[in-house]
Formats: sequence, C-alpha cells, structure tokens
Amino acid sequence: MIWNEKIECMERDELEELQLKRLQETVKRAFDKIPYYNKKYTENNVFPEDIETLKDIEKLPFITKDDLRESYPFGLFAVDRKKITEVHSSSGTTGKPVVSGYTPKDLDTWSETIARGLTMMGLGEEDIIQNTHGYGLFTGGFGVHYGSHKIGATIIPISTGQTRRQIEIMKDFGTTCLIFTPSYGIHLGEVAIEEGIDPKELGVKAIGFGAEMWTEEIRQKVEDIFGAKAYNIYGLTELMGPGVGIECEAQNGLHIPEDIYYPEIIDPNTLKNLGPNEKGELVLTNLYREGMPIIRFRTKDITSITYEPCECGRTLARMSRITGRSDDMIKVKGVAIFPSQIETALLKAGDVEPHYLIIVTRPHVLDEIEVKVEASKDLFFDGVKEMVNVKDRIAKSIENETGIRVKVTLVEPKSLPRFEGKAKRVIDERNLH
Amino acid sequence: MIWNEKIECMERDELEELQLKRLQETVKRAFDKIPYYNKKYTENNVFPEDIETLKDIEKLPFITKDDLRESYPFGLFAVDRKKITEVHSSSGTTGKPVVSGYTPKDLDTWSETIARGLTMMGLGEEDIIQNTHGYGLFTGGFGVHYGSHKIGATIIPISTGQTRRQIEIMKDFGTTCLIFTPSYGIHLGEVAIEEGIDPKELGVKAIGFGAEMWTEEIRQKVEDIFGAKAYNIYGLTELMGPGVGIECEAQNGLHIPEDIYYPEIIDPNTLKNLGPNEKGELVLTNLYREGMPIIRFRTKDITSITYEPCECGRTLARMSRITGRSDDMIKVKGVAIFPSQIETALLKAGDVEPHYLIIVTRPHVLDEIEVKVEASKDLFFDGVKEMVNVKDRIAKSIENETGIRVKVTLVEPKSLPRFEGKAKRVIDERNLH
Repeated sequence: MIWNEKIECMERDELEELQLKRLQETVKRAFDKIPYYNKKYTENNVFPEDIETLKDIEKLPFITKDDLRESYPFGLFAVDRKKITEVHSSSGTTGKPVVSGYTPKDLDTWSETIARGLTMMGLGEEDIIQNTHGYGLFTGGFGVHYGSHKIGATIIPISTGQTRRQIEIMKDFGTTCLIFTPSYGIHLGEVAIEEGIDPKELGVKAIGFGAEMWTEEIRQKVEDIFGAKAYNIYGLTELMGPGVGIECEAQNGLHIPEDIYYPEIIDPNTLKNLGPNEKGELVLTNLYREGMPIIRFRTKDITSITYEPCECGRTLARMSRITGRSDDMIKVKGVAIFPSQIETALLKAGDVEPHYLIIVTRPHVLDEIEVKVEASKDLFFDGVKEMVNVKDRIAKSIENETGIRVKVTLVEPKSLPRFEGKAKRVIDERNLH
Repeated sequence: MIWNEKIECMERDELEELQLKRLQETVKRAFDKIPYYNKKYTENNVFPEDIETLKDIEKLPFITKDDLRESYPFGLFAVDRKKITEVHSSSGTTGKPVVSGYTPKDLDTWSETIARGLTMMGLGEEDIIQNTHGYGLFTGGFGVHYGSHKIGATIIPISTGQTRRQIEIMKDFGTTCLIFTPSYGIHLGEVAIEEGIDPKELGVKAIGFGAEMWTEEIRQKVEDIFGAKAYNIYGLTELMGPGVGIECEAQNGLHIPEDIYYPEIIDPNTLKNLGPNEKGELVLTNLYREGMPIIRFRTKDITSITYEPCECGRTLARMSRITGRSDDMIKVKGVAIFPSQIETALLKAGDVEPHYLIIVTRPHVLDEIEVKVEASKDLFFDGVKEMVNVKDRIAKSIENETGIRVKVTLVEPKSLPRFEGKAKRVIDERNLH
C-alpha cells in the first residue's frame, strides 16, 4: 500500500506552491540542458524567469508529437544518456516512433504514481496482480509491474495472449486483480464461460483498465462478468506511461498525482486554457522528471478536470474519462461533440447496427447534423411506423448524450461503408476555412 | 559495473566456508518452513543437523521437475505468499507448469548474479542493451532487464519479434549489446544484410546468448555476422532464471556465482557425484534464496565443472557449455555420448544433410553404433567412390568429437523420417534393462 497522505490530501495552496517550485525547476533545467527547448523558448521569447506563477505556464509553447519526433531519438534528454537506464517507445505506426527515457529516479517516481493508484483500487501486499498488458517497449506492462513491486503485491507478469493459460493461472494462483484492456477482458471472460467457469467465482476483487477507449456500458459489462469493480488507468508513453490518472474506489474521475504531473485543459481550436469542469484537450507537464522533462504536451485526449475534493478524502484533481480525441472533435452550434458520444447514444437506443455516418452541413446560418445509421434487419422488416418510433428514440438518445438535436436517417442494413482500420465516421460539408 | 571482487576472487576455503554456512541455513529453513521438504527429508531419514560439511549435501535427496509439479503452484514457498512479489513460470508444455517465486531480496540477488555476468561481458553504464528475449512469465527477459538496471546500463526492453524495427532501433539508438537466442540472432543478422546493412557496422560490442542449445560453430557464425564477441548465459526458471553461469571475456566456460548457487555434477545413471572436469548432469542448489529455496535440483543438463582459476582473475568455478540433456545421453562402451556431438561431427564433415539416425546395438558383448545420415543430393550423384570417402570423413569426425568409432551409412536424400517438434534421433536396440 502506498498512501502518500501528505501529498494526496494536501491543501490546494500548499500543493500549488510545490507545483510552482517544481515547474520553475523543470523549465529552468529544460532551458539550460536541452537545446530543443532552449531554441523553442528563445524563438517564442519566453524564458525560465517568466514563470512567476503557475498561470505563467500559459506563456510557454506547446510540445506536440511532432516535436518529439523531431527530437528522435534522444534529443529531449536532460541528462547524459549514460544516466538513462531504461527506454520505452511508442509503436511508431504513424511515422518515427516517440522515445521516452528514464533515470533510476524517474523509474521510482513512475512506480510511485502507479503504486498510489493501485492503492486507490484497494490493493496491497496480500493481492495477486495478473498483468495481461504486453511488456516490451510499450509502457503499459512495465508501469503496472513496477507499481505492483512498490505496493508489495505479487505480480504475475503473464503479458498478453494464451487466454486459456490466463484462466488456468487465475484459478490456480488465486489472482485477485486483473489488468487488461477492456476488449481483452471481455474476451477473457467469454473464454472462461465457454470453458464452464464462472469468472465471478474466481475471486477477482479489482480490475485495472487501460490503453484503450471505453464507455460506461463496457465497464458495466466487465464488472458484471467478473463481479468486481473496474478502475480506469490513464497515461501516455511521452509523459512516462500509465499513472497520469487512476480512479479511486469512488469511480468518479481519475486522480492525477499533481505533484508529478501538471494538467491543463485547452480548447483545441483556440488553444486557450479552459476552466474547471470545461471539456477540452488535456495538456500535461512533467513536474518531477529527471531524464526527459516534457512541458505542455498536447495529448489530443478530450476530458475535463474537477478540483472538488473526492469522497475518498483525496484533494488531488480528477480528470473525467477520455471521451474522444481532439482530432475527432466536431464543433457544431458552438458545442464540441465526438463520434464516440453518437455511438454511445445509438447503443443505448437499440434496434440499430453499430454502423453510422455523421454528416455536418450548414445550409444557411446554422449547422445541421444528420446521423445516418443502419436499421437492424428485424426493424427493417417491421415497416415504416416502427422505424419512425426508433428514429425518434435515437434522436432523443443523441440529444441526451450531446445536448444537440440531430436529424436521424435510418438506412438499409449493410448499406453504409465498412472500414479497415480507423473508421471515418464524420463528413463535414461546411466550408469552415 | 558490478564487480564483487571479494566474492568473485575469494580463496576456495573461504568460499567453501561461506557456502557451508548458507547451505546449512537453507536446509534448515527448508526443513522448518516447507512441509514438502520436511516430509521428503524425514522419509529419507536425513535432517538439517546431518549437514556438517559441504560433502554432506550428497546425503540429501534430489529435487526433480516432478517434485516441483507436485508442489504446484506455491508448495515450495518458504515464506508467506504475501512476501512473494513476483512469480515466473515455465511454459508447462509437458504437464503442469513449474512456478518460481521471488521476494524483493531474491529479485535483488537475481539481479546481482546477472549484473556480475554483464560486467564479465565488459558492459557498464555507458552501454545500451537491446534485450530481444521475451518478457512475461519466461525468466529470460526480466533477468537481463534487472541485471541491466543494476549495472546502470540503458536497457531497451524490446522483447522478441518485429525484426525490422529491431534493426532500426539498433541503428538509431546505438545499441552496444544484443541479447538473443542464437537462432534469432542469426535471423536478425540475415535480415539486416537483406536490407543492405552490414551488422558489423552497427557498433555492437557484446552479445549475450541464452535460452537455447548451441554449438561453437554457431557462436563463430554469430560473432562473424556482428563483429562482436558472443557470451554464453545459462540459467533455469526453477533456480531463479538466467545468471547461474555467464562467460567472462576469456570465453572459456561459464562462471557460476557460487555464493548464490552450489553446483554438483552427477552420473545420471548411478546418481553418484563426479569429480572436477568429469562430464555429467548438473545439479544445483540455491544457497541464498529467501522465497523458494531449491535444493539439489536435477537440471538434466550435461556439463562439467572446473575449479581452476580463470585468466580473468575470478576464482569462481566454471561450467562448460551444455552439450546435451541427460535424457538424450547414450552410454556406449562406457562412454557417454550425445546426439548433439554426432550432429556437430556431421556438420564438420560436410556433404550430408542434417538428417540422421543413431542406432545402438549389442550384437555380442560389445556395443556398436551405426549412424545413418542422408547424403547431399550432389554427393548422391557423384557415385560410390566419392561416398566411401565421405563416409570415412564422417566416421573420423565423429571419432574426433566422441572418441568412439562408429559405422556410418549414407542413405538417399529424404529417406529418413522427419519430426514435428522434438526429433527422435536415437534407436537403442540393446536390451539393457
């Protein structure tokens, strides 16, 4: 158990004092030690001494994945490469991979953030954590591994795959915590049921979710399958890995270890900072990283942050579940909406297939949205009257989810395009630029 | 760099004193804390107080894989399971898997053994170690990972596969040490050459070999491809993992950290202990393991041990390269020979395919061996005279390798059986039992 009460329950003014001190040190070190920051800050005419308050962070330029790629592989190290003892990397499917370097102190800091999170999930040295995340350059596996060591739990570093063996080990070893991506978790549960094993009987008491987007419906499904609470674990390779946010037993937002990461929310279009509880793109800064401090990284992930104290007693800010990527965001009538919200609404409404297209137009002054969705085969045979009811139900469900009234068109089953890889769900016909 | 001079260059009498103390403690703890040992020792009428000298270890019964399976999963833990922070396991392809448990102290001990080995290979904090061993329940990946942390090198935990990415990372990150299985290493080199990259130009200075049997010819091939020395790393999940033996720059046997592991060599038939430099089955004992002490484990691996000081200055015993499994050993005319020796001899002789069968008979009083081997296609067309020459060359090569004169029969290409999985190379027609 790692319960850092001093930090996790710190009064906000005291926390902000600590954050400012660490931010100033970080910016100074980045400017002094890393030519890339030095050049970028100089070009933007901003210097370490300009950081007099936390709000002054807004003067600093953002760092994006492109900056990290330009600095590939080791251009953002603030220490001699010899002092870096571990390197991770993103998959590099869309260009040069991004590298993340760690000193022993960084590995310890990273472990601490995850250990605090595992503790939030109610885990301690009596627990057996079966970690189905892949190890390797991906940070998911190692993050949980190091965090587990720190709380003194028993880690089973089984990694991905071999589903039948995973189930056998759960049974034989008495696994009390599973770490998985939601989609793998559901698969694992289904295979267990196929084999005549009720996953609820296996004694799992907590599940850690990571490395994938998910909905509350999926969480519910996983919790029902395993008879255990599922907690959200969020993080990014660039910042260190998982542990940027982890849910506590209240399951009401992910606590950010704000002594380690400084979070901001910006409007991804105007790039202006937004206030508490406002939805926008998460921007993160390493406040306590020796090897490779990342300052104002645009995560592209859409969330909001609340600073209200949590019922668990922690005062640390909480971020909400990621609901989309800023790249996928559509701004309609001044409201930001995401394909994932439409998808959730469709699932809730029922009677339709998960194939849809969002068409945004601006016939006059106002934006209009049409959602084309495939009717289920049964519905299609039920005729027009039933279809009108379903259209109405879908429109209401979408309005519930997004606050926006849209036009719903039901189309024939299998009439919408299918996608290999990333689906293109939005057609924006407005001439906005 | 982890250079534990006190231990690694200790005088033998002092080392033996340390070993005896640790052996006595280990046996006592196993007897007191682990019911499995308690029962087994009581049945064999041997007790901790019977261990008065190192040689008294011979009074203790062996532990085999079957014992470990009977104790599956946690029956050989000497501490409360809560104190175990990591669990590894063998693949369990032939029955229940074998479990290996570690306390934090054990993980540290394990790291130390590998760190000493990486230091023997000339590595230190300036090095970049690309670890292509799989992580997960297999100990190969984590062993090297922890050892690398301990010497302060930069570990790239890339794991197996993605060969093109491996090569890109070698180039981009400046990898100075590769860890691989010989077969994967050769593949890696070949793919690099296909891509127009000379592996010798990549700056690799040391290679760690593990997790597979190999011959000196394969070592030579790997060293030629990468222009770097390749060092043998040996270990077993049951004992902790890799690190039981690692070669120093002299490449003349694997140093065993004898303060951590106590090695014996036995005759796998009589089970009697053999002397220095005698070839037989390696038996290992954990001298310094908290979580799961394994005492007198029959490894089935065939090697010999020398206690002569090494030119590197270390006084620790050295084991020779594993040349076979005791299960595969054939005793002929009082000499132990292994299919792997026949294979090496055939490769050296040339003009034949790597498909062979060893037939052992005892027509009268004396054993006779016939080696059937497929002639190469070319040779087969060259006719009888050439075949006689080749047969002679093969017989001499085998005699060189094993000291035994055998009958060689050349057979048509593709006439011998092929095997999926483990090949059956020996037909023993003697009625020995």
